[in-house]
Amino acid sequence: MGMIGGSLDAFIGAVHRKAAALDGEIELVCGAFSSDPKKSKATGKALYLDPSRVYGSYAEMIEKEKQLPEDQRMDFVSIVTPNHVHFDPAKMALENGFHVIIDKPIAFNVAEAKALKKIVDKTGLVLALTHTYTGYPLVKEARNMVKTGKIGKVRKVYVEYPQGWLSTFVEGTGNKQASWRTDPSKSGAGGAIGDIGTHAANLAEYISGSDIVEINALLNTVVKGRQLDDDSSMLVKFENGASGVLLATQVAAGDENNLNIRVYGEKGGLEWRQEEPNTLVVKWLDKPKEIIRAGWGYLCDAAKKNTRTPSGHPEGYLEAFANIYMAFARGVRDHKAGKTIDPAKYDFPDAQDGVRGMAFVDAVIKSATSNKKWTPLKV
Amino acid sequence: MGMIGGSLDAFIGAVHRKAAALDGEIELVCGAFSSDPKKSKATGKALYLDPSRVYGSYAEMIEKEKQLPEDQRMDFVSIVTPNHVHFDPAKMALENGFHVIIDKPIAFNVAEAKALKKIVDKTGLVLALTHTYTGYPLVKEARNMVKTGKIGKVRKVYVEYPQGWLSTFVEGTGNKQASWRTDPSKSGAGGAIGDIGTHAANLAEYISGSDIVEINALLNTVVKGRQLDDDSSMLVKFENGASGVLLATQVAAGDENNLNIRVYGEKGGLEWRQEEPNTLVVKWLDKPKEIIRAGWGYLCDAAKKNTRTPSGHPEGYLEAFANIYMAFARGVRDHKAGKTIDPAKYDFPDAQDGVRGMAFVDAVIKSATSNKKWTPLKV
Amino acid sequence: MGMIGGSLDAFIGAVHRKAAALDGEIELVCGAFSSDPKKSKATGKALYLDPSRVYGSYAEMIEKEKQLPEDQRMDFVSIVTPNHVHFDPAKMALENGFHVIIDKPIAFNVAEAKALKKIVDKTGLVLALTHTYTGYPLVKEARNMVKTGKIGKVRKVYVEYPQGWLSTFVEGTGNKQASWRTDPSKSGAGGAIGDIGTHAANLAEYISGSDIVEINALLNTVVKGRQLDDDSSMLVKFENGASGVLLATQVAAGDENNLNIRVYGEKGGLEWRQEEPNTLVVKWLDKPKEIIRAGWGYLCDAAKKNTRTPSGHPEGYLEAFANIYMAFARGVRDHKAGKTIDPAKYDFPDAQDGVRGMAFVDAVIKSATSNKKWTPLKV
Amino acid sequence: MGMIGGSLDAFIGAVHRKAAALDGEIELVCGAFSSDPKKSKATGKALYLDPSRVYGSYAEMIEKEKQLPEDQRMDFVSIVTPNHVHFDPAKMALENGFHVIIDKPIAFNVAEAKALKKIVDKTGLVLALTHTYTGYPLVKEARNMVKTGKIGKVRKVYVEYPQGWLSTFVEGTGNKQASWRTDPSKSGAGGAIGDIGTHAANLAEYISGSDIVEINALLNTVVKGRQLDDDSSMLVKFENGASGVLLATQVAAGDENNLNIRVYGEKGGLEWRQEEPNTLVVKWLDKPKEIIRAGWGYLCDAAKKNTRTPSGHPEGYLEAFANIYMAFARGVRDHKAGKTIDPAKYDFPDAQDGVRGMAFVDAVIKSATSNKKWTPLKV
Repeated sequence: MGMIGGSLDAFIGAVHRKAAALDGEIELVCGAFSSDPKKSKATGKALYLDPSRVYGSYAEMIEKEKQLPEDQRMDFVSIVTPNHVHFDPAKMALENGFHVIIDKPIAFNVAEAKALKKIVDKTGLVLALTHTYTGYPLVKEARNMVKTGKIGKVRKVYVEYPQGWLSTFVEGTGNKQASWRTDPSKSGAGGAIGDIGTHAANLAEYISGSDIVEINALLNTVVKGRQLDDDSSMLVKFENGASGVLLATQVAAGDENNLNIRVYGEKGGLEWRQEEPNTLVVKWLDKPKEIIRAGWGYLCDAAKKNTRTPSGHPEGYLEAFANIYMAFARGVRDHKAGKTIDPAKYDFPDAQDGVRGMAFVDAVIKSATSNKKWTPLKV
Repeated sequence: MGMIGGSLDAFIGAVHRKAAALDGEIELVCGAFSSDPKKSKATGKALYLDPSRVYGSYAEMIEKEKQLPEDQRMDFVSIVTPNHVHFDPAKMALENGFHVIIDKPIAFNVAEAKALKKIVDKTGLVLALTHTYTGYPLVKEARNMVKTGKIGKVRKVYVEYPQGWLSTFVEGTGNKQASWRTDPSKSGAGGAIGDIGTHAANLAEYISGSDIVEINALLNTVVKGRQLDDDSSMLVKFENGASGVLLATQVAAGDENNLNIRVYGEKGGLEWRQEEPNTLVVKWLDKPKEIIRAGWGYLCDAAKKNTRTPSGHPEGYLEAFANIYMAFARGVRDHKAGKTIDPAKYDFPDAQDGVRGMAFVDAVIKSATSNKKWTPLKV
Repeated sequence: MGMIGGSLDAFIGAVHRKAAALDGEIELVCGAFSSDPKKSKATGKALYLDPSRVYGSYAEMIEKEKQLPEDQRMDFVSIVTPNHVHFDPAKMALENGFHVIIDKPIAFNVAEAKALKKIVDKTGLVLALTHTYTGYPLVKEARNMVKTGKIGKVRKVYVEYPQGWLSTFVEGTGNKQASWRTDPSKSGAGGAIGDIGTHAANLAEYISGSDIVEINALLNTVVKGRQLDDDSSMLVKFENGASGVLLATQVAAGDENNLNIRVYGEKGGLEWRQEEPNTLVVKWLDKPKEIIRAGWGYLCDAAKKNTRTPSGHPEGYLEAFANIYMAFARGVRDHKAGKTIDPAKYDFPDAQDGVRGMAFVDAVIKSATSNKKWTPLKV
Repeated sequence: MGMIGGSLDAFIGAVHRKAAALDGEIELVCGAFSSDPKKSKATGKALYLDPSRVYGSYAEMIEKEKQLPEDQRMDFVSIVTPNHVHFDPAKMALENGFHVIIDKPIAFNVAEAKALKKIVDKTGLVLALTHTYTGYPLVKEARNMVKTGKIGKVRKVYVEYPQGWLSTFVEGTGNKQASWRTDPSKSGAGGAIGDIGTHAANLAEYISGSDIVEINALLNTVVKGRQLDDDSSMLVKFENGASGVLLATQVAAGDENNLNIRVYGEKGGLEWRQEEPNTLVVKWLDKPKEIIRAGWGYLCDAAKKNTRTPSGHPEGYLEAFANIYMAFARGVRDHKAGKTIDPAKYDFPDAQDGVRGMAFVDAVIKSATSNKKWTPLKV
């Protein structure tokens, strides 16, 4: 693995490195950690990398690594830069034969996302998007329960992603995370809606097994001086006839990372909260609610395969993240073994999810500025 | 107290009787429990009433009781009939000098509600509406925290009322509760939106201290064959600039009576769930969340005054209901003592809340059938 | 009902009155609320009693009421005085033909308890003891699950009753509740162990269906200056071979009234907490945990019969208390109808439970002062 | 790092490997994964190790690695074998200059533990014991709150470790984990008490900052045919005057890995549950309870330093485990830099904790077989 972005003072770079390292299957061998070569070097040194493989730019990294013998060069790049530096390195990596794993959202806008998807389709390489939350075992259990009809035809989907860390004007206090996320030239057209709304939409579609097709949204910039939206709520309709509510806000004072979802079908309901991810509550029409817990033998194969510890030994965010990496790595290995790659088989978010995410941001913004009640979400 | 409706096989009548009896301040002295005189008699007997004061109709009750000496006759009527039999008995009672406590919604439509309010204003009598949930002590604490600025200016209000009991076509199985609630000739124009949506709206306005002024709603009839809506969700805007989401559904399979609300301000957030009503969670920007619990010395006066037991001795739905009755009784006593009645002083839902509830139902239906995004809620 | 004790400034008297009033089946008709006749009169007046039936002493009340015609006099007495004034009024009431309901513990010591039981047996009258917590519907469900073998043979019972209100020397600050409870001349030989330990023991025996037969206890007086124990913990053995832990402490700083119990059998486990009494968690060996909730159709008859509201409309402490009163009232009614009374049939704590409670206090104190590991609990 | 034990079909070996790998600071370079050389080879291959460094026995590994140049050989061994194979490899590693990290309990009995501690003291090398649960950030916060007097002088400590996985005779079904743990020739004199009771004792001493000095225990073998205890409960006294209850059982049907602790002081109480490790509840005498959450700025330095993700991004068991590894690695690095090692400085469980653990098992067994109430726990 070669990393693009993720110098020592970044947040998500370290998360990717730990997630990749956890299972002993992926080794960080090189990186272009910053557009500032000094910072890149310092990061590489702190990570015990061979100094000759710590590069000053992603372009240099891709070129130089390509010149190494195949069994020595990196297999894939991990792109953990702000959104406006997703497309170019991903494109270059793919065009030079490297697989790509990339932090969400996939790109800066729909056009970039679609272009990337085309390159993936053409090259047959593997591209995974770290919609982390679908990596949780009980999210996979929930998806499987819906798919196998346990709760009947889905009627309602409520998905929420409330955070509180942007309740004040933190971007004015030098907070690096806040600064680029609230800057449209780096983040793209969406603020909260891009940063976390896309996670909520992806989770809802992943569990319900159905796409969002119409949106009726309210988008706010609550904190004075902020350049992008920090609060959103919307009514949504799904392809299968279900409807629901999606909200994503970063001004829910005191909330942490409270992504949660409820899905109700004809026969039962499901409830999952990311902050206590090892519990899935199932509600029934005429019998006791059930507490599904990670690590038990009664779970579906997908849930079991994405679990490392016995029940009661809690797994968390890094493990969910690592599950995305492991699924991606299986794809990479199969590609190296000459197999054709069908992303669905590996159960990781792919380029198509990336396109949908960007289209979601677009549709929300369009809806929010329209007097019409419903705006289609088409890809 | 004389009761109108509430024969032995009804649900809410018994609730009213227990709530009224709990504190030993109110005595049931007469009743017209059913339009079927036999049923009314049987109910009166089971309740140990003097047979001469068990009446065949509310009209008879009001007339006969009025003829009794003032210190012997009932002081007020409690109306617990289906919605279409709210207005007439309430009007007649008020016009004959009896105070009225009435199950929500106040009437069948806005016109009736406004007419009742006029009679209340003219007669100076006391009318209370049993929006039970505002009777909980920690709801009063939440309201007080908002009012005193503890969480700062309110930005977001999320209020939900999911139930699951109408997930199937129970009105086709002889369920009496379901039958009248899903029958527009008895329930009014709103199904779920009238039955529980009005509670959610009332709670949101009570705690936030601000009125809902605009609505953008989706209304569904999910269960085939049902005559009224059984599912709703909407974006809402408040007078003070806050926005939020309100949902009320009766097809949330497996949910019980899961009314809950979250209010976020500039400085903190509040979270309360009716099913565990003795806990109020407060979230702060930079310090630990707090668990406010009923029965502690640190609570506001309104919370303390509406609590009967020390902390850790849970109170519930009947106690909240009884709090509405006790507030109403204070008003009745003051009126008897010759004082002018200002409903705000007693902290019970009044005729104006009733009018707002009916206007809410109207606005939701109007919004749901409109292509325009926002529909005003005006009274 | 005639009440002995329970003047306006007492805590438990009001609880008894509300519990008795809730269901409209029991009427307070007279009282001797205080040994101070003025206080008794004031209390009677506040409760709207006929002044001629507010008495200056319990002896006067029993004598005068007995002289009233049978259909006018009180049916039973409710004794809510401190522990040292339980035996005499109970004895006198029974010997004069009045049934008795009495706050726990039944008496000041084992001898008094046994003497009372003898009188009950001899007179055939009804005596109930308000071990409130067995009145909760889900406690009855738990008992039924054990009884019907759902969780298999019981192996472990953990019961805890931590409170925090005696963490400081509150009896030195004029706190009336604390003062008599920590005064051996009023409370008896046990402090926390009598006040709340007896509840814990009773609950454990009620749910497990088996008696505690051996005790290995540690008893502490943690707060300096206190005259009685305020903290206890003990290992216990049950008649059926199960073992467990019982703890009752009043110095668990910040705890409210956190009575809770876990019972594990060969096939499953049960968990119940008084502070959220409408939830019972069931754990299984190889399938999801279940959340049993009050008010559902799947519950046992005893649970259903002791519930007033549909699921999700929480009931609490007063309702549990009222359930004891209602069961007692059924006994009283049957006695009046000439039936022989078998306490087991009515499912209320009776004189035998009272004797066991006092014997429990004795055994704990004996164990705590002994170097021997195990002390038998015999009745 | 060189690993001893932990072939592919073992549980705890993989846990150690992932914990060591997570932060990119420790590399697995060699191993003797099984006493079966074929199994060892297969494991090494699956872990991408250089085949020349996959050894047939720990003795071979220690000898051969010692012959490698200092900058190429392993720095330390990680011992993850059953308890009876802890002492010999640890002794040999230390005597050959390798640091040691070892799964708990440290050895087979007190004598071995003390002997190991002597070697550690003599060699000045680093030995860490993976009492995982002290690696959780909020356990460190709890310890710090006690240490800094936030909850006042400690009065009560309740620590529980209920598991349910040995509720049936699983060792008769070929379950490898169960088989060695219930075999006294591999596990030592203690069953549940050694396997999980030592964790509970360690956690209680770590948070309370005080040693257990007296024990009054009941030890059971609940499941028929089992060779060792599977259930224990005991009253305990601490050096600082506090008392409490410790229970460790593996027949709590349906429980997972429910380690939890409550500590009450004069001014407040703490409550932590391993299964939801990112929450610490603090209870106060006269103000709202607080919910301390991992990842917030208000935490103590030790808590912050042992956290990888922002609040609301849950960390779990593997992260706590990794924290022990990271603390150990800091010690190893300092030793390599020529510094003298004071285990207290690194905040990892050390040889002295190991000795206390074995002495705890001994004292419990002694107490359980004695008629005397209290048995001292001395080291």
